[in-house]
Amino acid sequence: MLRIAVLGCGRIGRMHAENVNSHQRAQLAGVFDVIKEASSSVAQKLGVREFDSAEEIFASADVDAVLIATSTATHADFIEQAVAAGKPILCEKPIDLSLARVRACAAKIAVSDVPIMLGFVRRFDTGHSAVRRAIESGQIGDLHQVTIVSRDPDIAPDAYIEVSGGIFRDMTIHDFDMARFILGEEIETVTATGSRLVSPALMDRCDDWDTVSVLMTTASGKHCVISNSRRAVYGYDQRVEAFGSGGMALSENHAESHMRLYGSKFTDQAPPLQNFFIERYGQAFAAEIDAFVDCVEQGTPPAVGFDDGEKALALAEAALLSVREGRTVRMEELA
Amino acid sequence: MLRIAVLGCGRIGRMHAENVNSHQRAQLAGVFDVIKEASSSVAQKLGVREFDSAEEIFASADVDAVLIATSTATHADFIEQAVAAGKPILCEKPIDLSLARVRACAAKIAVSDVPIMLGFVRRFDTGHSAVRRAIESGQIGDLHQVTIVSRDPDIAPDAYIEVSGGIFRDMTIHDFDMARFILGEEIETVTATGSRLVSPALMDRCDDWDTVSVLMTTASGKHCVISNSRRAVYGYDQRVEAFGSGGMALSENHAESHMRLYGSKFTDQAPPLQNFFIERYGQAFAAEIDAFVDCVEQGTPPAVGFDDGEKALALAEAALLSVREGRTVRMEELA
Amino acid sequence: MLRIAVLGCGRIGRMHAENVNSHQRAQLAGVFDVIKEASSSVAQKLGVREFDSAEEIFASADVDAVLIATSTATHADFIEQAVAAGKPILCEKPIDLSLARVRACAAKIAVSDVPIMLGFVRRFDTGHSAVRRAIESGQIGDLHQVTIVSRDPDIAPDAYIEVSGGIFRDMTIHDFDMARFILGEEIETVTATGSRLVSPALMDRCDDWDTVSVLMTTASGKHCVISNSRRAVYGYDQRVEAFGSGGMALSENHAESHMRLYGSKFTDQAPPLQNFFIERYGQAFAAEIDAFVDCVEQGTPPAVGFDDGEKALALAEAALLSVREGRTVRMEELA
Amino acid sequence: MLRIAVLGCGRIGRMHAENVNSHQRAQLAGVFDVIKEASSSVAQKLGVREFDSAEEIFASADVDAVLIATSTATHADFIEQAVAAGKPILCEKPIDLSLARVRACAAKIAVSDVPIMLGFVRRFDTGHSAVRRAIESGQIGDLHQVTIVSRDPDIAPDAYIEVSGGIFRDMTIHDFDMARFILGEEIETVTATGSRLVSPALMDRCDDWDTVSVLMTTASGKHCVISNSRRAVYGYDQRVEAFGSGGMALSENHAESHMRLYGSKFTDQAPPLQNFFIERYGQAFAAEIDAFVDCVEQGTPPAVGFDDGEKALALAEAALLSVREGRTVRMEELA
Repeated sequence: MLRIAVLGCGRIGRMHAENVNSHQRAQLAGVFDVIKEASSSVAQKLGVREFDSAEEIFASADVDAVLIATSTATHADFIEQAVAAGKPILCEKPIDLSLARVRACAAKIAVSDVPIMLGFVRRFDTGHSAVRRAIESGQIGDLHQVTIVSRDPDIAPDAYIEVSGGIFRDMTIHDFDMARFILGEEIETVTATGSRLVSPALMDRCDDWDTVSVLMTTASGKHCVISNSRRAVYGYDQRVEAFGSGGMALSENHAESHMRLYGSKFTDQAPPLQNFFIERYGQAFAAEIDAFVDCVEQGTPPAVGFDDGEKALALAEAALLSVREGRTVRMEELA
Repeated sequence: MLRIAVLGCGRIGRMHAENVNSHQRAQLAGVFDVIKEASSSVAQKLGVREFDSAEEIFASADVDAVLIATSTATHADFIEQAVAAGKPILCEKPIDLSLARVRACAAKIAVSDVPIMLGFVRRFDTGHSAVRRAIESGQIGDLHQVTIVSRDPDIAPDAYIEVSGGIFRDMTIHDFDMARFILGEEIETVTATGSRLVSPALMDRCDDWDTVSVLMTTASGKHCVISNSRRAVYGYDQRVEAFGSGGMALSENHAESHMRLYGSKFTDQAPPLQNFFIERYGQAFAAEIDAFVDCVEQGTPPAVGFDDGEKALALAEAALLSVREGRTVRMEELA
Repeated sequence: MLRIAVLGCGRIGRMHAENVNSHQRAQLAGVFDVIKEASSSVAQKLGVREFDSAEEIFASADVDAVLIATSTATHADFIEQAVAAGKPILCEKPIDLSLARVRACAAKIAVSDVPIMLGFVRRFDTGHSAVRRAIESGQIGDLHQVTIVSRDPDIAPDAYIEVSGGIFRDMTIHDFDMARFILGEEIETVTATGSRLVSPALMDRCDDWDTVSVLMTTASGKHCVISNSRRAVYGYDQRVEAFGSGGMALSENHAESHMRLYGSKFTDQAPPLQNFFIERYGQAFAAEIDAFVDCVEQGTPPAVGFDDGEKALALAEAALLSVREGRTVRMEELA
Repeated sequence: MLRIAVLGCGRIGRMHAENVNSHQRAQLAGVFDVIKEASSSVAQKLGVREFDSAEEIFASADVDAVLIATSTATHADFIEQAVAAGKPILCEKPIDLSLARVRACAAKIAVSDVPIMLGFVRRFDTGHSAVRRAIESGQIGDLHQVTIVSRDPDIAPDAYIEVSGGIFRDMTIHDFDMARFILGEEIETVTATGSRLVSPALMDRCDDWDTVSVLMTTASGKHCVISNSRRAVYGYDQRVEAFGSGGMALSENHAESHMRLYGSKFTDQAPPLQNFFIERYGQAFAAEIDAFVDCVEQGTPPAVGFDDGEKALALAEAALLSVREGRTVRMEELA
């Protein structure tokens, strides 16, 4: 049994704590949150130890590995401390909002062989990963074009948006990672467009966008398009399409149920899409823990590594630059 | 060019006349209807001859074949006359509402080799016929269970229902033929249930049913279920499902367009189903003319023969008997 | 926290034990199985008490309620004992293979007010229950016709089939309950047909059928059809269709993932259906525990009661009689 | 009856001739093709006059309107001549491969009020036009993002590609028009990427691309993405997606039939997509003739005008420039 401690007891942290707790090969070693009520409530409910600090976790002999689900600003520091303590890490994305900070962290931990896995959970979705497997197994031939649609059911509260680092670092970053996962090849050029259509006043204030589209290319000539919106009234829209010389593979949306309704003015109507990521990617969050336990127990490389986090962030920076300057950005500009 | 005359210029007759007229290997030799305005209007619009009587058509040297789309009561007589005149026949279903009359007609024309094709148009539908082909090609293994759903968008006018011969002879008869077409084997037992749910007063008056379900079996143990309703508010519901040892084949509904709508309370909503048979089976009606021309020109047996009409009607009689007596009927009882 | 003990640690019992264990408002009070290895392994894995006998559970002050997932032959006895001990019961279906035994049990517990809930898990499926809610909320008007398709991915081992009580009591019983759940009205007539197409030799030996279709009617004239097969090569086929005066509601199948594949010979291909009931009805099994906890804690009537178990079994008996005698059976014959 | 003459008897011309011939309110006044065998065969088959030259058609008192389906290089000349002769025009796209030539033509016919309709047939597709109507009727709120997927089933012969004017002018031009039709607003910026993945040698030789993606924006901040490929092995992929503040509308693909197949390794498999445009847009080609007859008879503005042709071509030029220079192009650069 791998004893995993969870840092951070917000919504995502609590979910991770429960997943670790009910995992067959893992055990919840304890939890910590700077807000004591948050960690106490989780610790009590699940009957596990409540740590007083992150440091206490890193120092504990009863902790084999850590899951970092604290606020973004703490990720890089905690990664460095956990590496120093020799604790394998599963860290929520993003590593940091600053590419420079991520690269400094990378430099600092470069010599270590402590496993670090990044929480790009969508790679573990049965549908999205089946698309990737269809490519790997040759079912759609050579990959030519990828389309990723990713829209939230509603815009987050102003307070969240204001500190999110902007749509590219906060939301599109998942899709940048998905693009790399599906493409199986590094991206060379990025052209992004951004609009303020969902919440214009807030976007003006934050100098951010709520509606973005991104067009990317790879060295071999593959194309990838991302469509994002901060609000899709019909629910959490999460689709991936991979088109190749031998066919096409799609990962389609999940409705709340498999019920279909027919009425006098319509047919074959499905319910709204699953809402929100904790439900939609519930299976994937559990599979992510699986992959982390495998990685630590078997010494295999993490399914999603630190450099994946860095590269996704670099793509976000490129997209930001592209919108700001109204031009195509080459990734080598950010090297 | 096969010169075909059309008898009957009601809704179906007009459509047949247009299909013959625009057919590559056929020519519309003329039309006739007892209501002179009906035949005049069609003859004028399509620029073809208007015959004064059915007899004139049967006697005409300019007519190679006939398409009978007159009222049901005239079908058997016209078949006998056309056979006597040596004119190949495509006749709308049913041959007659009386099984005795159909059998008398069969006896009368038994020695003739004039081709007679019955207008069970649904056999020519691309979806339904693809189900049959999937069976014949072994794609679903041995056939075990067939389900046919067939619901009209709305009940016909009282005047029509009153002379229709009842739901089994008028509506379910298409499904009895479809059952035989898909099963590829004769039916041995029939159990039917009938209810008066759509238009109870009319059904009481006519001693008829507007909602029926039929369960049938064959000698080899295949099962077939038919579900009928005189009114489906979402449109013309026409589905066939064939389940076998190696898989399943479905023929699914046709919506008015391939547009799908997503809103705040629903997703993936399709428009109403195509309404009504002239639209839904438009492709099949054209393919039926093709098959008739093939049959006459190449001397191949008709895709749907006189005996198919007789057998479908016998199943309708069995279903009627089953509902009336509340029991399973064996087809040998009607031999 | 409701302390629930689980009797029976076979495949279903283990799953129930885990669901109880991870339930927010319930606690796994312990487990028991006549095969000691089975209960030991579950008790150890989940860190709960292993009881030495059912009697010990019924007598324990640390047990608030029991979940009976033992072999069918023990259900009625355990229900009687649990009632005598005042322990609320969630019992796997069926109550017993003999309608007489079920009725004797009913008589014995008649005066008790101990809550008994039957494990007809499919009622808790989000899709099937959404169909029922669509009816209750008037979305499809008056209900007219119900179609239930229920096919297993493969036939169970001979040893299981031989003691199963036959397809109607073992497999169709779920669909009889679903029919009653969806119809919202008692069934009056049953006509069933059975064939031996999947495993003829085994079926001959057991005088059983592997392919059955059932046609049922209610007093108000609603129709319901069930199609069963012991083997659908494409997976666990579980569909419900409710047709009414104002529309139609369908509960559709669950594929293994939402990936769709396009190739040179096909489009829009989905993976096989979820396999098997523990996966397909995983959400429903969890919701069932919820409903049981609600029932006990809040004193509300069980969502599925003892009489639902009795009525489903009576329908199974009627179907058996119908196939054996080749006739429509009225439910009053079994009263 | 509007008497329409058809210029050009290639594949598209023949289809138009047949559509005109069977139209209720139009009459085929005759046909012409520079290849005499082509026009003779159509004239004979449909029993209409064969003209000896385009001039003869423009001069004929028996011709009310013309349908130009000749090779692209002749379109602008014929438009000018038809306008001079006062004959309303339905002209196949594109007007010309040269934007300069199109603008010269525009200048020349500027003072005329002879109706000119451009053959952007996809606007008449029931699915695509239903998307537009959903927008106009407010069903999806304010439009934010449009995605157009358009892939041919296979690359045309080398000889065709070599004179096609390149993928943007030949193929994407349909999608540029669709983008404008769906957006309901002019496009401001165009970023395109092109790859040589389907037929690299041919593409190298022609300095063309077989795989392109285009990202466009409008003044109000709407985004539109086009994905093209010269070869989709699963058939003719034609989809439109419109996402807005109140929902989403999709126009989905058309398979060869509505049959769905289930096997031991897959479920819900549809057949290949309809192949090719004459089948897929057969309904739209007929509706286009309708719209043209309406326009001429009722004096209403054409559904698709000359300037729509010019604007689509300008977008093609912009895309070409964008790929060549690897940058975002503003439409004002091409003014």
